[in-house]
Amino acid sequence: MGKLTLYIGNKNYSSWSLRPWIAMTAAGIDFQEVLIPFDFPAGNPKFKPISPTGRVPVLHHGNIRVWESLSIIEYVAELFPEKGIWPKAAADRAVARSISMEMLSGFRALRNACPMNMRRPKRKLDLPEGVMDDVTRIETIWRELRAKSGGPFLFGAFTGADAMFAPVVNRFDVYDLVTDAGTLAYMAAMKSHPAWIKWQEAALAESWIVPEDEA
Amino acid sequence: MGKLTLYIGNKNYSSWSLRPWIAMTAAGIDFQEVLIPFDFPAGNPKFKPISPTGRVPVLHHGNIRVWESLSIIEYVAELFPEKGIWPKAAADRAVARSISMEMLSGFRALRNACPMNMRRPKRKLDLPEGVMDDVTRIETIWRELRAKSGGPFLFGAFTGADAMFAPVVNRFDVYDLVTDAGTLAYMAAMKSHPAWIKWQEAALAESWIVPEDEA
Repeated sequence: MGKLTLYIGNKNYSSWSLRPWIAMTAAGIDFQEVLIPFDFPAGNPKFKPISPTGRVPVLHHGNIRVWESLSIIEYVAELFPEKGIWPKAAADRAVARSISMEMLSGFRALRNACPMNMRRPKRKLDLPEGVMDDVTRIETIWRELRAKSGGPFLFGAFTGADAMFAPVVNRFDVYDLVTDAGTLAYMAAMKSHPAWIKWQEAALAESWIVPEDEA
Repeated sequence: MGKLTLYIGNKNYSSWSLRPWIAMTAAGIDFQEVLIPFDFPAGNPKFKPISPTGRVPVLHHGNIRVWESLSIIEYVAELFPEKGIWPKAAADRAVARSISMEMLSGFRALRNACPMNMRRPKRKLDLPEGVMDDVTRIETIWRELRAKSGGPFLFGAFTGADAMFAPVVNRFDVYDLVTDAGTLAYMAAMKSHPAWIKWQEAALAESWIVPEDEA
């Protein structure tokens, strides 16, 4: 079927791009990456011919187009069942998908107030209502799952669910949102993963500025 | 593992409850249904002990808890692979998941302005910005997939992707949002499905009123 090509946006800001990218990179999947920078505020018209929604990320595989970050993760999980992108036990997989979909559909207060920004120096914000409720719920998810699995990741080894929460690690960090030792230990595990380090180094080397995402 | 129990909210209003309910009912899966009415504006405190997010729908299966509508659909699709909840071809399954996740994460303008309301008499609204963009994108999805599959549903037979769009059929109908013949044909197929009819009859028999959802 030919090569997998993942189209992504700016590494500094594109939280949705990071999710499938880190899932695929952490799993050791061979893919071609094509970065198309944002062209705010109108979006990037170059996304339209490559993506049915006009947004990235989008994965091309032969004639197949897969969009939405988590749908890309599902696609590669099916394509490479030996890579352990989802936990092996059905009960764990159900929880992994449930929390991944909480991330996909929710945590709007946190996402709107605290955009992912890999270059941002750590500094607190005045937080709108709802942000700390999101933080508390995410800390509960991480704490309960790591207590059960023993860590370092949510289900022990790195899975698609960790990929879905990867951008939150940056948000908790640069907006100085958390102090719990368990939360910080999970963040440390994420930030020392080779795939995270590779993404972050590329993000730090970018020079595009998106004013809307500089909170 | 024992019985599947699906906890849902009011059938008249709970669009997220309808999605897994209609997927499971259309597939002929045997499950127990427990309806817990909304208690607005505070939500229903009875949801908390049964659901990690304090929201419905949630599926209980032995000790397993599955939440988020689409995660429940994934869970039963794995549990009953013979039921065809996802399309058989990997390429179709990828698209089914991509559009299901577009629904899960997006179409906010439509969802906010036009709450699902099975009892509402058909009447136009003054529509805020963005609603007709959502309508256009959904009509494009439906048109392209039905042209490819031949219909009557998105991938021919009813799948989890149709379940994810089922509440939109009600919205297009009661807010009088569409006129395209193909769109109306898809809506007619949905509204004549036995599972839809069963849900609608129960919704019409409810007497709870949620003022926030009476647009």
